[in-house]
Amino acid sequence: VKILPVILSGGSGTRLWPLSRESFPKQYLSLAGDKSLFHETLIRFKDFPDTLDPVIVCNHEHRFLVAEECQKAKLNNPVIILEPEGRNTAPAIAAAAIYSQKKLDDCLLLVLSSDHLISNAENLYESLKIGVENALNGLINIFGIKPVKENPNFGYIKPIIDNTSDGSYFVEKFIEKPSLKKVKEFLSSKDYLCNSGIFLFSNKKIINDFKKYSPEIYKYVEKSVLHSKVDLDFVRLEEKNFCLSPADSIDYCILQKSKDIKVVPIDVGWNDLGSWETLYDLSEKDSNLNHLRGNILSKNVSGTYAISDSRLLTLIGLEELFIIDTVDALLISKRDQISNLKEIVLEMKKNNIEFTHHKKVYRPWGWYELLEKGEFFQVKKLHVKPKARLSLQEHKYRAEQWVVVKGEATVINGSRTFKLETGESTYIPKKTIHSIENKAAIELEIIEVQSGSYLGEDDIYRHQDLYGRAE
Amino acid sequence: VKILPVILSGGSGTRLWPLSRESFPKQYLSLAGDKSLFHETLIRFKDFPDTLDPVIVCNHEHRFLVAEECQKAKLNNPVIILEPEGRNTAPAIAAAAIYSQKKLDDCLLLVLSSDHLISNAENLYESLKIGVENALNGLINIFGIKPVKENPNFGYIKPIIDNTSDGSYFVEKFIEKPSLKKVKEFLSSKDYLCNSGIFLFSNKKIINDFKKYSPEIYKYVEKSVLHSKVDLDFVRLEEKNFCLSPADSIDYCILQKSKDIKVVPIDVGWNDLGSWETLYDLSEKDSNLNHLRGNILSKNVSGTYAISDSRLLTLIGLEELFIIDTVDALLISKRDQISNLKEIVLEMKKNNIEFTHHKKVYRPWGWYELLEKGEFFQVKKLHVKPKARLSLQEHKYRAEQWVVVKGEATVINGSRTFKLETGESTYIPKKTIHSIENKAAIELEIIEVQSGSYLGEDDIYRHQDLYGRAE
Repeated sequence: VKILPVILSGGSGTRLWPLSRESFPKQYLSLAGDKSLFHETLIRFKDFPDTLDPVIVCNHEHRFLVAEECQKAKLNNPVIILEPEGRNTAPAIAAAAIYSQKKLDDCLLLVLSSDHLISNAENLYESLKIGVENALNGLINIFGIKPVKENPNFGYIKPIIDNTSDGSYFVEKFIEKPSLKKVKEFLSSKDYLCNSGIFLFSNKKIINDFKKYSPEIYKYVEKSVLHSKVDLDFVRLEEKNFCLSPADSIDYCILQKSKDIKVVPIDVGWNDLGSWETLYDLSEKDSNLNHLRGNILSKNVSGTYAISDSRLLTLIGLEELFIIDTVDALLISKRDQISNLKEIVLEMKKNNIEFTHHKKVYRPWGWYELLEKGEFFQVKKLHVKPKARLSLQEHKYRAEQWVVVKGEATVINGSRTFKLETGESTYIPKKTIHSIENKAAIELEIIEVQSGSYLGEDDIYRHQDLYGRAE
Repeated sequence: VKILPVILSGGSGTRLWPLSRESFPKQYLSLAGDKSLFHETLIRFKDFPDTLDPVIVCNHEHRFLVAEECQKAKLNNPVIILEPEGRNTAPAIAAAAIYSQKKLDDCLLLVLSSDHLISNAENLYESLKIGVENALNGLINIFGIKPVKENPNFGYIKPIIDNTSDGSYFVEKFIEKPSLKKVKEFLSSKDYLCNSGIFLFSNKKIINDFKKYSPEIYKYVEKSVLHSKVDLDFVRLEEKNFCLSPADSIDYCILQKSKDIKVVPIDVGWNDLGSWETLYDLSEKDSNLNHLRGNILSKNVSGTYAISDSRLLTLIGLEELFIIDTVDALLISKRDQISNLKEIVLEMKKNNIEFTHHKKVYRPWGWYELLEKGEFFQVKKLHVKPKARLSLQEHKYRAEQWVVVKGEATVINGSRTFKLETGESTYIPKKTIHSIENKAAIELEIIEVQSGSYLGEDDIYRHQDLYGRAE
């Protein structure tokens, strides 16, 4: 029996704003090292025996980000399941279970969150082996972490301690988001574990439990999987049924109801990089307890976490601040008041300002950034990956001017197909079919100047190309 | 006899960094109102009887900024004298005096600094009349301000109090940059005035005093004026002799030596906008004593002065900070530690980082900003003023692509002259003569994509156009 990692990649991007956004949740950022947390998760168990390439369940909007990360991680056969909207963990896990049963028959699902920083994953292997035995015997495994910090945002578990145990324990009770007072008791009693959000069970078992404890979720998600469409590398869940499913957590729907649950303690350097304060705690600091990353000059600065995207930051006489500088937004907060961020970001969201998008936008062919925007024009820089191509398309209201500034482009402009070398350019009148392809082995960079009476992204009419691709 | 205002416009742009720069000193910024301090100075005495359009003495590098400001202020006949380098106030005043004597014969020079904020200039008129009488009688007038704040950076003057005075007084002694203790004494004794940097004297008198007290300065500056060149609207002082002149202040060279000095007290709401602290003091503040300008969200912020250029600033839990956000640099400083800025800026200057230039650069035809820069390309946005034109030029190492995004351009590209409307574009290969003209009444905006092996500003070969202009 094979093990199939199921990576849940949701996230709203509020707590690490302005670095994370709705369009760019934190697991895709490189926060602690070169690789993103998502990338680390993709490859975490690749060396564990009998483990397949993972299934990722993510929001439709993040599909190109996920595809890009899978490519960077050199996965051969990842499956990317797209949710039309986030509906908490239970429908996502149900979709992965149902999909896997149809495609792979029986297998074990190893459910992982995509935003965990786990510094010593090998320590998990022994616990995982215990979990595999349990799962093969029809049990559901929750991996539990010894709590080290008073965190009331976690779920806590009290195992039934049994000296004859194989390293896993049945559960006496679950405590969701306890009071801080309770959390302190849990920590001192040492009888409690934190729910890590890492689970292991067979697809057969979880499907049975969905049928038994959450028949509504099962019914709608099954229909949604049945009517899903495979499009390029993506499995698009059918929208109507998926959105009819109750939005609930797996903890509430199954784990707290099922009788066949065991908790397996794990000892990993685990951290939820969910907040700026955690990032500050984990970061390397200088002798003044500063973590300063980027082009930064400082004098009399202490206890400060500062990141600069590109500009020069000059800091004088500051104590205990977060300073997060991005292309389009800047956050400066006293460290002990950062908890106000959530509320402010929600307010921004309500007012629709500077919340969802960075200037960088990922596409299947690479990414673009907005350099300048006027009423009737905008300037973008396109980065087209080697061997990638933009779909054959036309615009009703805008003309485009392309100047190649790096690499070589193969261009379709109306009825002509030709090459553009660095420094060369072409003009695409409105209502003219066009496409760019990068046949070379190095990245292609193009400055695109759009001009017209309407410049929205929705003024695009895609034509299928020779390969039937229309993304 | 006419009065000729002489506006000294030097400045190194260190104290208001990053808003002011070497290429953009503070007097050209709109710090307190719509108009820049320089603009205010240009028009300050235009309604005073017998007053001519001013002579401005400024650095060669700021000529287009100054010309732009003169145009905005709707001056008919300003004279812009360009110094090859800053050599303090004495050579600048000597140059204006010698120039005025050659061009206008006898006149009175009213010397003004370009970076003063004077809220009630009319109050000066009465004092000015007294000064005119004195100047006609061969005296030098220093206008003196009653000190209100302990500022050891000023020069102080002790007048000889005389009850029969006409409102002006001979000088008992000068005290340059006294200790803070002395300054406190001066303030409480009420017998002292601050040297405002505003002077009034006849060109004849000051030239005589230069000959007598600073013959070296006189000798070299006279030669420099004699060999100056008139170029467009500018009088370019001859470099070699000007730079041989000692670099000294008029206070030290003449005022403290001459016997014919009178001080005229003035009562103006005067402020030297020389530091962020002064700007904070003068700014309008909300109930939490914040001055927040731009796209700023704040919570629990007090005593803070924040300016945002374009990005969204989110501020949480901050007290008494300066936050100055510009396109390419950000300053965050505790208010009471801002005095460290000078040292940091000097260090940046030494290391040649982010100091001299903003991304916006003023030219005779308007201005440009850098949008993006790569190794072999850069993207600029050109703003060409109505009726303005770029010189006829060519580049050896770079090609250029122009896309008109606003207005209409008349373009010379090699042997062809043609029009480009909004959305249209043209490609200028390297070694091809080219020019842009904006014949319309509205601004012309062009996206210029340069590509080539070398992109320095010095790869430019100017050809004289039909009018003999080559700027």
